[in-house]
Amino acid sequence: MVRKISSAVIRRLPKYYRYLDELHQSGVTRISSHLLAQRMGFTASKIRQDLNCFGGFGQQGYGYNVDNLRAEIGEILGLNRSCKAILLGAGNLGRALINNFKFSRCGFELIAAFDLDPAVVGTEINGVPILNIDSLDSFVEEHHPEIAVFTLPSEVALEMAARLEKLGVKGIWNFARHEIRPASTGINVENVHFEDSLMTLCYMINDKKEK
Amino acid sequence: MVRKISSAVIRRLPKYYRYLDELHQSGVTRISSHLLAQRMGFTASKIRQDLNCFGGFGQQGYGYNVDNLRAEIGEILGLNRSCKAILLGAGNLGRALINNFKFSRCGFELIAAFDLDPAVVGTEINGVPILNIDSLDSFVEEHHPEIAVFTLPSEVALEMAARLEKLGVKGIWNFARHEIRPASTGINVENVHFEDSLMTLCYMINDKKEK
Repeated sequence: MVRKISSAVIRRLPKYYRYLDELHQSGVTRISSHLLAQRMGFTASKIRQDLNCFGGFGQQGYGYNVDNLRAEIGEILGLNRSCKAILLGAGNLGRALINNFKFSRCGFELIAAFDLDPAVVGTEINGVPILNIDSLDSFVEEHHPEIAVFTLPSEVALEMAARLEKLGVKGIWNFARHEIRPASTGINVENVHFEDSLMTLCYMINDKKEK
Repeated sequence: MVRKISSAVIRRLPKYYRYLDELHQSGVTRISSHLLAQRMGFTASKIRQDLNCFGGFGQQGYGYNVDNLRAEIGEILGLNRSCKAILLGAGNLGRALINNFKFSRCGFELIAAFDLDPAVVGTEINGVPILNIDSLDSFVEEHHPEIAVFTLPSEVALEMAARLEKLGVKGIWNFARHEIRPASTGINVENVHFEDSLMTLCYMINDKKEK
């Protein structure tokens, strides 16, 4: 069943998934909306509202079944589909993601990375082949990755996004400093803004100082 | 003047800052709430509401003065104070941040990084000394960094957070996979969740497929 869920709720689903997964890992099988709210820093009524959006009804006096709710949210997010991903830019950040990030937990399989540095092209990192950026187009045409991870220099990000969109790539997970705002609706972009969270921390520590 | 601003508005301030800074960089001196709204994906009325919170009033028929508003938001966030930061864990992600991340743009100066790998301890990356983790306590007591960036293994994050809190560190910018929820209110934590944004992208590309 495909239901329209508001984008604000969608944005909160990964957080629900994360918390439920943690509960699941630690053997908790059910939880009340109040306790979940307390852990997540939401109100219980917001949680009930959010989860009711897609039919995740808790039972009066029982609460939510952790495994069911986790599975349901995972399915809505599409985490079990294992879409193909490629990564552009095998510098420090790219290598950090290739080595340590669990793509499979987020519904993706990282099938290749691309760079232009002859020192890394032709090698493998954590089982992922590092290919020459020159072979990008033919690789995409052959393997049809659904998303590309951008850990490349900001200056080339926009041009590369347009190139990949033409090749049929559906999404970009962008770590380049400049936000990518797609001109068309043909490609989805998630911009990761390190700065936003550090600026928030800056506010928080300065705010405390003033009190 | 210290005014209480809701945490939801605070969370949006870095985004305002980012957009205003971009406008500033490209020479734009004023902008209407409508145009700013369009660029940022907010409604004009939300923008007016948010900015009125701290006295950033636009003028009817003129809009906002980009430089003033940018400076004002920067001041609220405390970006001009140059607080000291240290980084724990000079692996790939740590090195990516040391090399490429503009701490100064976010109100911080990165004064040292710590690791236990003899191959990097004693070296310098981008002007930042990499010190032995054994010297952490004495360094913190001497230099009083206000925040620590956590690019260390998840398993040690919690213990390290408690240790730093005792030493008087005010904030943690946490990249370790497990969220740190401080037991007390003595330390502020900003958790960076790579997974959340990739899961959102997963939803977006799958949602499109189904239509």
